[in-house]
Amino acid sequence: MAAEIVNPRSDSNTDQDGEVEPVDSFDPAFALHRGGKMAVQATVPVRDKDDLSLAYTPGVARVCTAIAEQPELVHDYTWKSSVVAVVTDGTAVLGLGDIGPEASLPVMEGKAILFKQFGGVDAVPIALDCTDVDEIVETVVRLAPSFGGVNLEDISAPRCFEIERKLQERVDIPIFHDDQHGTAIVTLAALRNAARLSGRSIGDLRAVISGAGAAGVAIAKMLVEAGIGDVAVADRKGVVSADREDLTSVKRELAGFTNKAGITGSLETALDGADVFIGVSGGTVPEEAVASMAEGAFVFAMANPNPEVHPDVAHKYAAVVATGRSDFPNQINNVLAFPGIFAGALQVRASRITEGMKIAAAEALAAVVGDDLAADYVIPSPFDERVAPAVTAAVAAAARAEGVARR
Amino acid sequence: MAAEIVNPRSDSNTDQDGEVEPVDSFDPAFALHRGGKMAVQATVPVRDKDDLSLAYTPGVARVCTAIAEQPELVHDYTWKSSVVAVVTDGTAVLGLGDIGPEASLPVMEGKAILFKQFGGVDAVPIALDCTDVDEIVETVVRLAPSFGGVNLEDISAPRCFEIERKLQERVDIPIFHDDQHGTAIVTLAALRNAARLSGRSIGDLRAVISGAGAAGVAIAKMLVEAGIGDVAVADRKGVVSADREDLTSVKRELAGFTNKAGITGSLETALDGADVFIGVSGGTVPEEAVASMAEGAFVFAMANPNPEVHPDVAHKYAAVVATGRSDFPNQINNVLAFPGIFAGALQVRASRITEGMKIAAAEALAAVVGDDLAADYVIPSPFDERVAPAVTAAVAAAARAEGVARR
Repeated sequence: MAAEIVNPRSDSNTDQDGEVEPVDSFDPAFALHRGGKMAVQATVPVRDKDDLSLAYTPGVARVCTAIAEQPELVHDYTWKSSVVAVVTDGTAVLGLGDIGPEASLPVMEGKAILFKQFGGVDAVPIALDCTDVDEIVETVVRLAPSFGGVNLEDISAPRCFEIERKLQERVDIPIFHDDQHGTAIVTLAALRNAARLSGRSIGDLRAVISGAGAAGVAIAKMLVEAGIGDVAVADRKGVVSADREDLTSVKRELAGFTNKAGITGSLETALDGADVFIGVSGGTVPEEAVASMAEGAFVFAMANPNPEVHPDVAHKYAAVVATGRSDFPNQINNVLAFPGIFAGALQVRASRITEGMKIAAAEALAAVVGDDLAADYVIPSPFDERVAPAVTAAVAAAARAEGVARR
Repeated sequence: MAAEIVNPRSDSNTDQDGEVEPVDSFDPAFALHRGGKMAVQATVPVRDKDDLSLAYTPGVARVCTAIAEQPELVHDYTWKSSVVAVVTDGTAVLGLGDIGPEASLPVMEGKAILFKQFGGVDAVPIALDCTDVDEIVETVVRLAPSFGGVNLEDISAPRCFEIERKLQERVDIPIFHDDQHGTAIVTLAALRNAARLSGRSIGDLRAVISGAGAAGVAIAKMLVEAGIGDVAVADRKGVVSADREDLTSVKRELAGFTNKAGITGSLETALDGADVFIGVSGGTVPEEAVASMAEGAFVFAMANPNPEVHPDVAHKYAAVVATGRSDFPNQINNVLAFPGIFAGALQVRASRITEGMKIAAAEALAAVVGDDLAADYVIPSPFDERVAPAVTAAVAAAARAEGVARR
């Protein structure tokens, strides 16, 4: 590609034409992000030629030869077993939508440092310049030798489902789409504790999910897996039910295992008498609909930054209220799950992350709350240092129990 | 892929069948490599929810939006401009040959920590599970948004030439095959100093290169670029000359701009009266051939671990002797070039690495030797702290002069 001279002039906020750059120099987020948020470090010394002759040639050749002869040694003698690729195509970044790979990088770096901070897992941002399902799958298959796992991130539905499924069929390292399963795991943990608080079992509850994207579909699957009484999922056109003729294949599958009650119509219709509302849509739920829910309902309004139901409104009718925000109690935050999930999977060199491992993660996360359980404490804080070790241990044990561990 | 239970038992050196693992537990190289040689670190704090709200949601969304609106800001607000992908397909690893991607990882990690140690450049090992030229090109094109440059490594010739060329046509970040250009740059630096020492100019010299792979071809091109009197390249079948009918397209091109003297026949024939021998073949040169070189010859026998001519033999006939080994004087070591090359290119956000930037790197590297120039000191030590800053500054300045810098 021909070289074009561009001058980003990092110290000015006007460009060459005098137009103002979209950067608020008083915004601390920009100051913090300058130069990026992460670095690589050597964990062995390279001080002199003796060091060099072990870490590089000629010593390194003996390690390479050993791995060539006995491939599983790659886990012992490289960083493969401690490093995860955080892979996106930039199509569904936060609430911003399809902003492309470069613009998604700050989120991927953020994810990478959370992996390190909370799980001790090394992670590398990989923002791909392609959006075709098979191209993404092929690319990640080719990258797989270098990584111990792949965290898919901010890839739009329904492509994310197919990419994850096809990838996991092709590689023997864990593929985990956090927007689906991370959200589902933390939601299930909060729901288990809310049920425990109110003396009910998951099997007694009827839930309604607003949003049939990555998170909504995964939460529905996980709640069914966990034995929920019933769950209905609503998209923009209303409740997903078998009689609808506009369903994508993913939603048709969803209709097959959700909504046993056969509810048709709007989200509001479904909420009438429901025990649980789970919002992963970014829409707004009218107060009357919340008021129509069953006595002692749970409202998990997780849209960011604007919850589907404001907590002040939700509290008028609900026994337990959770959001996606850090400034209200009960924050449903994926960082409670993904660092420990991968730390546990990498620890035992799991070949995949099974449903059992996800359920185990949710149970371990819920158990951290213990006897301190209360309406405003159904889920731990992201900064609770007990969380990652508990999730890690539970996931590792479940991987062994499910036969996907390699050590 | 189905999960297979394998137990690498990292603390034992026999496997389940009682066979001995190819690991010498007394070899310090294995002890040093355990768990890998590198890690990722956060460069910003993530101590509490205020930190999290800047480094991750919601603060990060403002940075993403700014990059989406003004794409060049990705260089200011992510680690893109400080991180290089070290990409291989594992087909030509050290002298070990085609050992595959996993077995090549220790070398790629070694390269990554040398990037950091010597150039302050972050680098990520990417060992690809594909060997087709176009598949490798497509894969790296898709990865390019996440990186500020790509160091190609240990990819076999002639595929390496086509991969580098095609890739550089498709992306606006530097693509640099170190086995070619790193070696060529350091060789040219040593040759310049050897010429200076003997009061001759490069234009007076006739050189013979043994080896027409990645390094041999690149060195030939660079010597011609630098104004060498003449250079002939020999492969296993003898000197590459236009009359040979067995030439690949790369060697045919080589024949077009080398060997002005029109030498045909063996390497030994070409060495008769030659001023410079450059060995990048791994073969052996008979002592009689070295003896037949011109008075005051330079012998750069760079094969590792066994130089084409042992230094003790070379010293009988040559004025300057260099090898690829750290235990003899004048080590031609790529680590003298690649960290500074990428540090300089990244510093000015170069879109590519031009011939002028490579020549500038060689000159800066040669200049570090300064007045200390001697027959056993024509090239600095890899641990000379003046090297990387000198190369970095020269490459950055050349990038600006050549119009490929973006700041």
